[in-house]
This record gives sequence, C-alpha cells and structure tokens, in this order.
Amino acid sequence: MIGVVATLKVQVEKTSEFEAVFLDLAAKVKANEPGCLLYQLTKSKTEAGVYKVLELYASMDDLKAHGGTDYFKAGGVAMGPFMAGRPEIEYLDAVE
Amino acid sequence: MIGVVATLKVQVEKTSEFEAVFLDLAAKVKANEPGCLLYQLTKSKTEAGVYKVLELYASMDDLKAHGGTDYFKAGGVAMGPFMAGRPEIEYLDAVE
Repeated sequence: MIGVVATLKVQVEKTSEFEAVFLDLAAKVKANEPGCLLYQLTKSKTEAGVYKVLELYASMDDLKAHGGTDYFKAGGVAMGPFMAGRPEIEYLDAVE
Repeated sequence: MIGVVATLKVQVEKTSEFEAVFLDLAAKVKANEPGCLLYQLTKSKTEAGVYKVLELYASMDDLKAHGGTDYFKAGGVAMGPFMAGRPEIEYLDAVE
C-alpha cells in the first residue's frame, strides 16, 4: 500500500472555488478507482489557504492510474487559477 | 472529521523495534476506537528513519479519547528509546 500527502497552497480569497473543484474530483476518484483507498481533503487549522490531501492506494499501479485519468488532469487545470504555488507531493510506503 | 499527520523520527538502527511497538499500538486502536477512522503507519521513501502516521477521527472528542487511552500512553513510553527526536503533530480539519 502506498501513501501520499499532497500539500496544496491556495489563494486565500479563492478557497471556496478550490474546494468545489476538489470535491468534484474526489467524488470521481471514489466512483472510479477501487484501488484508491483514501482520498481525503483536509485544511490546516493554523495556515489559511493551506490544504493537505491524505491518500492511500493499494499499489503503485493504482497510484499511476489515478494520475493518468482524464478527470484528474482536468481537475488540475480547473484548480490552476486558484493556486498560490506549486503542490508538494510526498510519497510514502505503508507499514503493515 | 479531524485529520492528523504525525511525523516520527526514529533511530535508523532501531526501526524494526519501533515498527513492532507501533503496529501493536495500531492494532489496539483499531480494536477499541470506533471513532478513529484511519490510523496508518507509513515511512518515507527518501529519508531513512522518518515515519508519518496518517490519522482520521470522527470528532475532536474521538481524538482526545485516543490520546487518553492507557495503551497510547504505554506505547509512547515503549517507543521512547527508539526515537531520534520529538514528534511533530499536525492537526487538520477535513473538508467534506
């Protein structure tokens, strides 16, 4: 199992628009990716505009498939105007 | 729902011992805490000895209850000799 923590920095005045686009993407992930076991958007309690996505995938192939979907690519394009910087993506190995 | 990302730095030569203690703790959490929705140990793919625990709780009360259990306190004591620094705990609000 593979873990991901994605840190996303969003323009403070655009957080509502960002959340709407992200939650639409998350719904598509849940509907289409049985190998994606967790795809949970969270936001910092202390830093405005800072979000973290907690993700778990059954395998590296499932993670690659996620990044290759049309709706993931379209979501990235749709979020672009709301972002305040490049995403930071950390990849992790689950310990079981 | 509340998210937590806990970063734990472990002495590189003590990772096996740490993992054994942590997985025992995680089994107790899963067995006893219906309000803990995720408690997944992961390790960095790039930094030896660096672990991240991805956690989700149904409510702040569930998170507080987690930290107050005897097995959580005992686990912290048991891990102590294997650690390379203080844990960094980040608290997050789920966006749903």
